[in-house]
Amino acid sequence: MTKSERFLRACRKEPVDCTPVWLMRQAGRYMEEYRLVREKHSFLEMCRTPELAVEVTLQPIRRFDLDAAIIFSDILLPLEKMGVSLSFSDTGGPALGNPVRSKQDVLNLKAIDPETDLAYVLKAIEMTRQGLGGTVPLIGFCGAPFTLASYLIEGGGSKYYKLAKGMMHTEESAFHLLMEKLTDMACLYVNAQIRHGAQAVQMFDSWVGILSTTDYRTYVLPHMKRLFSSIDKSVPAIHFGVGTYHLLPLMEEAGGDVIGVDWRVPIDEAWALLGRRPAVQGNLDPTVLFTSRESIEGQVKDILARVIGSPGHIFNLGHGILPGTPVENVDFLISSVHDQSKLAS
Amino acid sequence: MTKSERFLRACRKEPVDCTPVWLMRQAGRYMEEYRLVREKHSFLEMCRTPELAVEVTLQPIRRFDLDAAIIFSDILLPLEKMGVSLSFSDTGGPALGNPVRSKQDVLNLKAIDPETDLAYVLKAIEMTRQGLGGTVPLIGFCGAPFTLASYLIEGGGSKYYKLAKGMMHTEESAFHLLMEKLTDMACLYVNAQIRHGAQAVQMFDSWVGILSTTDYRTYVLPHMKRLFSSIDKSVPAIHFGVGTYHLLPLMEEAGGDVIGVDWRVPIDEAWALLGRRPAVQGNLDPTVLFTSRESIEGQVKDILARVIGSPGHIFNLGHGILPGTPVENVDFLISSVHDQSKLAS
Repeated sequence: MTKSERFLRACRKEPVDCTPVWLMRQAGRYMEEYRLVREKHSFLEMCRTPELAVEVTLQPIRRFDLDAAIIFSDILLPLEKMGVSLSFSDTGGPALGNPVRSKQDVLNLKAIDPETDLAYVLKAIEMTRQGLGGTVPLIGFCGAPFTLASYLIEGGGSKYYKLAKGMMHTEESAFHLLMEKLTDMACLYVNAQIRHGAQAVQMFDSWVGILSTTDYRTYVLPHMKRLFSSIDKSVPAIHFGVGTYHLLPLMEEAGGDVIGVDWRVPIDEAWALLGRRPAVQGNLDPTVLFTSRESIEGQVKDILARVIGSPGHIFNLGHGILPGTPVENVDFLISSVHDQSKLAS
Repeated sequence: MTKSERFLRACRKEPVDCTPVWLMRQAGRYMEEYRLVREKHSFLEMCRTPELAVEVTLQPIRRFDLDAAIIFSDILLPLEKMGVSLSFSDTGGPALGNPVRSKQDVLNLKAIDPETDLAYVLKAIEMTRQGLGGTVPLIGFCGAPFTLASYLIEGGGSKYYKLAKGMMHTEESAFHLLMEKLTDMACLYVNAQIRHGAQAVQMFDSWVGILSTTDYRTYVLPHMKRLFSSIDKSVPAIHFGVGTYHLLPLMEEAGGDVIGVDWRVPIDEAWALLGRRPAVQGNLDPTVLFTSRESIEGQVKDILARVIGSPGHIFNLGHGILPGTPVENVDFLISSVHDQSKLAS
């Protein structure tokens, strides 16, 4: 088996030579190479310029023994093309200039044509595939409808999601229409990424863990089912969330060939809650990368011991890698996953 | 049965005439009466001046048909007396001037004598009991060791708890010592509150939901067990956390006559995970109070329907009431809980 096959085989729950590993936000601020590019260009400029997006996508692949690349981009980019103004600050996170607060605002959102509206992402995917030359597969991604809806309604990040939940509970038809429009967008967008070379796609439902199971079932599940049933079946789809222990059986019902789980529960317990149908991705606490080699290795061994012998585990962090993470610990983590999983199998 | 008995009977899982209700942070910024006091005094001044603390503790009792009062105070106050400087800003939340980062910092933390160090809280409890005149019981409270340890190590609120988890994973003995010292403090402090008139005590482990079950079992559970076994058994102890679905069986093992659960899972499912041993408190999403009467009543009916006929439910929000919550909705919520639970029983 070549290294290039590890990740995709694990997504399909096929046996592998050792556990594949990639890290959410692996192209990011913790790398000096990234910071050098970022010093000269804004975050949005990096996303919108294929040459820059390709460069930072490839940086962690050149630096580390990772088993997959993920295209450098942002889940909020398609929202601009739906008619929302978007800006990023270094401190305050993303801000949307004209949030969606009424049914009319939802009606005003435009459908996108990824081939023209997000041509720069599709171009970056094509160029990255060329740059990778088959060494490791390339993952495309999209924000899941609920997480995007939260950003659109709140106008940025949020602590309590008061407005998003408010629309959900008092303007049900407007909320469902918003979810439908975002689902339409996501279907078109990820399928375009697949056509242009993405070999797997991850749906980031990063904020869905704040919902109750009841709200998820009513307001999110039907849309996620439609989304996963519309994604091109030729590549694996990864379904990711944080703080979702209570939602895991519903997320499994929603779909995805792989389900991402954070660090809160041991990965074998999470897998059991998923009925062991999908593959699983996770679940190291990103803060562990700030500790010692002993601590990292201990956690790697624990995670691997829980799933070894059951094909279908992709090693990852439970959430994105944090700024300031020491690169030598990233290197050590990746070797440790490969070495320990070879030893154990 | 008089109104004064409802809350304490429910804590002991005894039958009640209707479901008792109180709201975390019920003395707070959403009330005009509170804002008037706050305009003239700093938050810390309000905590440290018994007359002011009593006044704002009683405000929601005068304004609403609540079934319990909770002393106005803050979980961080005892930390000052352990040797940490403490300040509150209106925007940035609490800040601790000299965070705990090493074993020596932990060793430097002083033991407290609540009778002198927190005499103003104990005095406020006595005066509030007088002011209440037996109408409703008074709840005292304390931060749970892990939540306080997080504040001490991070130096304030945190998004990722990188430093707190870092000490946990790399300086195990320093972390355990810190938890021991905080447990000692909490035991002394809540028992003093009980001696001075608190008729129930709530342990706020507000941030514990960010921990994995493995870390909870190793670094938190032993200390929480000791804490609950040391609390004066003559009054009920409430054990509260947020985002704790994965931790509920361990929290039950740790102790508490009542366990607080947030809005993420239906209260009957949470109760089942607790083996139905303790009483349960919760679990309305605080954001629902920003919606409509129809929506509030629908959620109240759903929560009550799940537990009606099983004594031992105290109605509350899943987390503190949010600033800006309309007072008329608070009024409506409380009547709705009382009326609907009378109808249903």
